[in-house]
Amino acid sequence: MISINQIKELSTQTPSKIVLLVIDGLGGLPSPDTGKSELETAHIPNLDRLATKGICGMIDPVSPGITPGSAPGHLALFGYNPLEFIVGRGILEVLGIDFDVKKGDVAARGNFCTIDQTGIVTDRRAGRISTEKNTELCQELSNIVLKGAEVFVIPVREHRFALVFRGDELSGEVNDSDPQQVGLAPKSVVPLTPDARKIARLANDYIAKAKTILADHSPANMILLRGFSQHPDLPTMSEIYKLNAAAIAVYPMYRGLAKLAGMEILDAGASMEDEFDSLRRYYPDYDYFFIHIKKTDSSGEDGNFDAKVTALEEIDRLLTRIIDLDPDVLVVSGDHSTPAVLKSHSWHPVPVILYSKHCRPDNVREFSESACYSGALGRFPAAEVMALAMANARKLVKFGA
Amino acid sequence: MISINQIKELSTQTPSKIVLLVIDGLGGLPSPDTGKSELETAHIPNLDRLATKGICGMIDPVSPGITPGSAPGHLALFGYNPLEFIVGRGILEVLGIDFDVKKGDVAARGNFCTIDQTGIVTDRRAGRISTEKNTELCQELSNIVLKGAEVFVIPVREHRFALVFRGDELSGEVNDSDPQQVGLAPKSVVPLTPDARKIARLANDYIAKAKTILADHSPANMILLRGFSQHPDLPTMSEIYKLNAAAIAVYPMYRGLAKLAGMEILDAGASMEDEFDSLRRYYPDYDYFFIHIKKTDSSGEDGNFDAKVTALEEIDRLLTRIIDLDPDVLVVSGDHSTPAVLKSHSWHPVPVILYSKHCRPDNVREFSESACYSGALGRFPAAEVMALAMANARKLVKFGA
Repeated sequence: MISINQIKELSTQTPSKIVLLVIDGLGGLPSPDTGKSELETAHIPNLDRLATKGICGMIDPVSPGITPGSAPGHLALFGYNPLEFIVGRGILEVLGIDFDVKKGDVAARGNFCTIDQTGIVTDRRAGRISTEKNTELCQELSNIVLKGAEVFVIPVREHRFALVFRGDELSGEVNDSDPQQVGLAPKSVVPLTPDARKIARLANDYIAKAKTILADHSPANMILLRGFSQHPDLPTMSEIYKLNAAAIAVYPMYRGLAKLAGMEILDAGASMEDEFDSLRRYYPDYDYFFIHIKKTDSSGEDGNFDAKVTALEEIDRLLTRIIDLDPDVLVVSGDHSTPAVLKSHSWHPVPVILYSKHCRPDNVREFSESACYSGALGRFPAAEVMALAMANARKLVKFGA
Repeated sequence: MISINQIKELSTQTPSKIVLLVIDGLGGLPSPDTGKSELETAHIPNLDRLATKGICGMIDPVSPGITPGSAPGHLALFGYNPLEFIVGRGILEVLGIDFDVKKGDVAARGNFCTIDQTGIVTDRRAGRISTEKNTELCQELSNIVLKGAEVFVIPVREHRFALVFRGDELSGEVNDSDPQQVGLAPKSVVPLTPDARKIARLANDYIAKAKTILADHSPANMILLRGFSQHPDLPTMSEIYKLNAAAIAVYPMYRGLAKLAGMEILDAGASMEDEFDSLRRYYPDYDYFFIHIKKTDSSGEDGNFDAKVTALEEIDRLLTRIIDLDPDVLVVSGDHSTPAVLKSHSWHPVPVILYSKHCRPDNVREFSESACYSGALGRFPAAEVMALAMANARKLVKFGA
């Protein structure tokens, strides 16, 4: 596959517009009752028509057999090889709570926990304290001052919070302090590379100060940190593709992932319909739009086959609003599969439609797993979708003489 | 994909013969009138029969979405990863004028241009002087002598010429002297790596001497150089595949590309028919033949759908001359797509037929984009064609114990 640096040399700015519609958890599996997947069950005439006019295929978000998290699933669709560009758990957590994470920042996930008098962890979740209590305790922790870095503590839910370190020369290359089981003491944070000495010192200092502050707050009398990771500092879509890119997403995590890729975040309301309205409103102002639809994934995770079918049908009705804008390139796909029968993300490849005036249509006549696997795009890595979209938008010059 | 060094270990010499027929710009797009591509429109019974007997697929010359130049398109078919083996613009230019470029040489494209009294470029093309004038001026420039290298100046057409530096320890890693717009002075040639100091000095020295010689030749009173690049020094097909390879091509550039791969260049006449005659004449003497047909690409570039169809039908008639020779392996494909509707090279994958006694035929019954994409070869990188051809010719031994 072509590298980001190579494609950067080929990209060129034009007035043409690309729309990427990400139907989260799009791919499914057949219901044991009917033998049909969610997509095969849904009545989706507009998507079927788009599949007919466009070229179809199946994407592997990460690599065959690999079940993607939301970050690799999306980064791949944005054109980043998800095996190369990694978003750590700490960073993903703070993206999910809309924290404005910056280049250089190191983030970690935190738990309030319970330790006994000898310092041994007796409950990794501090009896799942209430979110209110959590907020109160984070308020107290926010008084901690460290030498050489700012630190932000943000409550998440129940016993969970997030921690962000901001300062010079930080690194995420340290181990967790969380021992992952009761009966052990919290671990010291140890640098895994020489560059990580500073963050290890900061983290241990923070933990010591938090322990003092929390001493009288049993069951939440200690903290555990894990998933230290640094802002991945991706080359932006503007740098690579010379795109003026914008994102429309209701959930913070997806806005955060788009922000990592350098997209502008548009106000999008709270419903699917609001998102499509937002696209129409901002359509003149950008040349690349990422629209994220969550409901398919959450229904899949709930194991609610029918709700996923209903969500697909709702998307299908709203699709005409994109079609009416007549984008030069329209890509419809998902960041991974979330089959209702599995109630989770899965490794199955995801159907994709690419539509443009120049796309060389194939014989696929409906948008489904079983139709798309015989599409002319074949089966290919999701990270190649972006080059195809750029080519169809006539935004890539010839490679080589 | 297997590396060239790995495949070298597996290759073995046998009497079997491979023929690669490259139909330049083969892939197309549907005509808006009929909904059929050039290949789908052409009456090509012999190619259809070959597709039926062989195994078919679609190749990506460089990477999905990437529009290839002629050099990467051909190198891929010869088995070189075109993202790794790069032929620079200067080298391609001198290949195109049949200059006998050698390992170590550095070539650049040149323009005669006009500068004013202050040295500012006022016309990058010197009013497009005639080719005759160009030849006359190149004759004068050929008196330039440089310390530490030979230099060749070769007229191309109108204001364009090519320059080749031959000497020890040269490199192509320098910037252009061409400022790419009027109103600026020509730039100094600056080394981009320490190894390029010598070529930068030679180029600047040459430019200064040319300026003196041309002073009274306004509008052609200065030169601009760009696309400095070095002979890519590819491992040859004889080294990698133990093949005694030969090339049949009417246009110099394709002969030049074949020469880079270590092929012998056969005299081929000027017509398509001459090329097929040449194949028959030399058939006993080599075990790999590359035959290049240009007409499909030039018709595509001209936007002449019907001429491309006619060229395909002519190729189909002549195909029997290859079939009659009964090569062990016959590969028919293109170096890229050149859809007449786009009037240019494009990113679309290219149909391929691989025929041999051992090829495991599929259900494809005609040679077209819409038939080949469901062929059993699937969609795959063009650089893998060579290993498939070698395997089918029984020229590769088992890999691993």
